Amino acid sequence: MPLVRIDLDKSAPADRGAIIGTVVYEAMIAVAGVPENDRFQVITHHELGEIVHPADGYLGIRYSPDLVIIQVTWNAGRSVDVKKQFYRMVAENVALRAHICEQDVFINIIEVAKENWSFGNGEMQYAPKDGK
Amino acid sequence: MPLVRIDLDKSAPADRGAIIGTVVYEAMIAVAGVPENDRFQVITHHELGEIVHPADGYLGIRYSPDLVIIQVTWNAGRSVDVKKQFYRMVAENVALRAHICEQDVFINIIEVAKENWSFGNGEMQYAPKDGK
Amino acid sequence: MPLVRIDLDKSAPADRGAIIGTVVYEAMIAVAGVPENDRFQVITHHELGEIVHPADGYLGIRYSPDLVIIQVTWNAGRSVDVKKQFYRMVAENVALRAHICEQDVFINIIEVAKENWSFGNGEMQYAPKDGK
Repeated sequence: MPLVRIDLDKSAPADRGAIIGTVVYEAMIAVAGVPENDRFQVITHHELGEIVHPADGYLGIRYSPDLVIIQVTWNAGRSVDVKKQFYRMVAENVALRAHICEQDVFINIIEVAKENWSFGNGEMQYAPKDGK
Repeated sequence: MPLVRIDLDKSAPADRGAIIGTVVYEAMIAVAGVPENDRFQVITHHELGEIVHPADGYLGIRYSPDLVIIQVTWNAGRSVDVKKQFYRMVAENVALRAHICEQDVFINIIEVAKENWSFGNGEMQYAPKDGK
Repeated sequence: MPLVRIDLDKSAPADRGAIIGTVVYEAMIAVAGVPENDRFQVITHHELGEIVHPADGYLGIRYSPDLVIIQVTWNAGRSVDVKKQFYRMVAENVALRAHICEQDVFINIIEVAKENWSFGNGEMQYAPKDGK
């Protein structure tokens, strides 16, 4: 169910987008109860200057051109604690495996209803039980 | 009102994005009560590997490089049944007219409030009646 | 907190994306209570035909290839009046400073919960006070 948009700079190494995608997917399974194989991601590489961050930083955090914007759309209902664990695991493992600073991992979550997905075949796979 | 993001692979035929856009627009009018001419869409073509799907499929559905990610932002309030009809019509007609499998049509809906749109001119065209 | 996606045509002057980004950021501070330096934006330039608008216009508004799609994700809770002021200020200043018509400024807002952000470091910077 989650649809993940990953936006990063074209200057990034060629495999960085895929590494980040794998980290996000694994963290979803590990801490957010996302099922195996529920991995749908859209990666976009941007020209210099198209990923904009504050030059003076924000909340004490400084950003570099490595900044990665991760925007997740998933179902409503996950707790604050689950989201905290998710942010922690994504940032730590992106830093470790994609060799960027934890500061440069920006995450936003959009929440939707279960019926707001079709995973193909024109079906509503997560339809409510009452069939309405 | 709907804003539709359509993400597909660069290897797709040049007219596929536009065909999918037309299908989505027509389905919105046919089953979701969207007004004529309310058609705002952003199409993005991606390099190989930037649209990520599970290699083993998900929920029994297998995906190919033809996979199209359609993310719709529209107003809250449509029923589960309307969404079901929308998924069905989009997948069937994309398959028919863009010559891809119904499996490769992924749809997600984000819902917002009526006041969350400006269609140009700096106006809130769907402002609540009380003017607040 | 706001994450802003700005989609525009490749035929636009090179500095237009940045100008629009600055205008949006300044309007957020001026009318929507967004803190200084809270500026995270993703700009994408599109090939001809990838930003789709109705040929006959919508609600009496006609669009040109200058059409800019601005999609803002920010925290829920802002009033209809704040959103109205935001649309007004963005359209006026985009027109003035990026030299496009106010008709060509399309804005959509997606609203999320405060805990749906990590601004880096794997932290939930806007965590609810009760720590849950």
